Amino acid sequence: MKKKRDLYFIGIGPGDPELLTLKAVRLIKECDVLFFPAGKKTKGDSIALKIVGDIIDIDKKQISFLHFPMVKGAEKIVSAAEPSAEVIDKELSEDKTGVFITVGCSTIYSTAGNLFVTLKNKDINIHFIPGISSINATASAAGFPLVYSEEKLAVLPATYSRDRIESCIDDFETVVLMKVHSSIEIIRELLDKKDFLNTSFLVERATTGEEKVLCMSDIPEGYKPHYMSSLLIKKKYGE
Amino acid sequence: MKKKRDLYFIGIGPGDPELLTLKAVRLIKECDVLFFPAGKKTKGDSIALKIVGDIIDIDKKQISFLHFPMVKGAEKIVSAAEPSAEVIDKELSEDKTGVFITVGCSTIYSTAGNLFVTLKNKDINIHFIPGISSINATASAAGFPLVYSEEKLAVLPATYSRDRIESCIDDFETVVLMKVHSSIEIIRELLDKKDFLNTSFLVERATTGEEKVLCMSDIPEGYKPHYMSSLLIKKKYGE
Repeated sequence: MKKKRDLYFIGIGPGDPELLTLKAVRLIKECDVLFFPAGKKTKGDSIALKIVGDIIDIDKKQISFLHFPMVKGAEKIVSAAEPSAEVIDKELSEDKTGVFITVGCSTIYSTAGNLFVTLKNKDINIHFIPGISSINATASAAGFPLVYSEEKLAVLPATYSRDRIESCIDDFETVVLMKVHSSIEIIRELLDKKDFLNTSFLVERATTGEEKVLCMSDIPEGYKPHYMSSLLIKKKYGE
Repeated sequence: MKKKRDLYFIGIGPGDPELLTLKAVRLIKECDVLFFPAGKKTKGDSIALKIVGDIIDIDKKQISFLHFPMVKGAEKIVSAAEPSAEVIDKELSEDKTGVFITVGCSTIYSTAGNLFVTLKNKDINIHFIPGISSINATASAAGFPLVYSEEKLAVLPATYSRDRIESCIDDFETVVLMKVHSSIEIIRELLDKKDFLNTSFLVERATTGEEKVLCMSDIPEGYKPHYMSSLLIKKKYGE
């Protein structure tokens, strides 16, 4: 019987190298093969490479860069990740341990989720190692709790329809919108209508040296947020 | 002018001492005063004390145990935390740095949220340092992503009304119910009606040595979950 190999999906946090967990550091050091998501021509996400490069000598590790084409819809996303799953299956030879690096948390909107469906049918032991997600980092950057007491939290991509976002704002005390950079004008208009501009915060590149926290009421029209941005909508702020 | 003092709300993760961040470890070592939430007669949460005790010599640190009475409703929760806020204000004398320890993430259903409202009006610089929350830990323990692609996530206390929980299950691909131990029978009946028993997982004491992951379809009637339990409801599992 073929021996099962171990693959760790590791979240390395939102950008601050100090937000890595002790477990992530240990597994990155101990593993035999490191897998990085990467652009078609680039060698991996620069943030991820920099963070991991502070922990280990990248040149002395077996590294594999995996490209994930940008497509929409769960089925297409899974299909597009199949070639990367094949590379992992091939490179993770028997008795080897692999680490797949993801920025943020490996359980939340991570490329690990795209690979998981294909990999779970192979003889690989999959382990999700959680990291600090940009959701938590967005609240800590804005400087207040995400939820407390009996509050409810909704997390959704900002690319959703305006109506669905509106219904979440109506039903939940806290809403976090991910990937907000391309929908900022629609969201602003919605928050204005609901009178929540003053209690909504755009957080760009949370926890990195370039972090920006902007109250939605202060953002000039036509503002283009960084692509690593989340929006934290609170109905009440600090009351 | 009185100098502002620094207080760090630090999430130490869900239980596994390896899930502390490097930042949490550094700040716990460096701070002058450590604050722990504690029972009325006990000396702090045993998990938190054990995790922090592995990092520093507790006996050599200035430590303050703070009691938070169990009450319901945001206003009462804030009032009940006022005496603890006063203790922090008093013990954190000028030029001192304090760390308030919370299990999980300091931004999510943490006692830090109860203190925050009172403390923000005092001359204290408040910093939320995110930790691994039990939400992410629940998904990693169950062994699959919380959300990927265009999925939406709802997080809410299981003590909500059955109707509101049902409407979340209808609208969201993934629902995480916190503090599920006292509502397990109502939730089970709801999941049965919706035919989601097979894709819902009760996770007790995630990431600790006593972690248990139970599919809801396998749980016997009358089962009493540990109080540190979350329920992960997925509409589809690994498809």
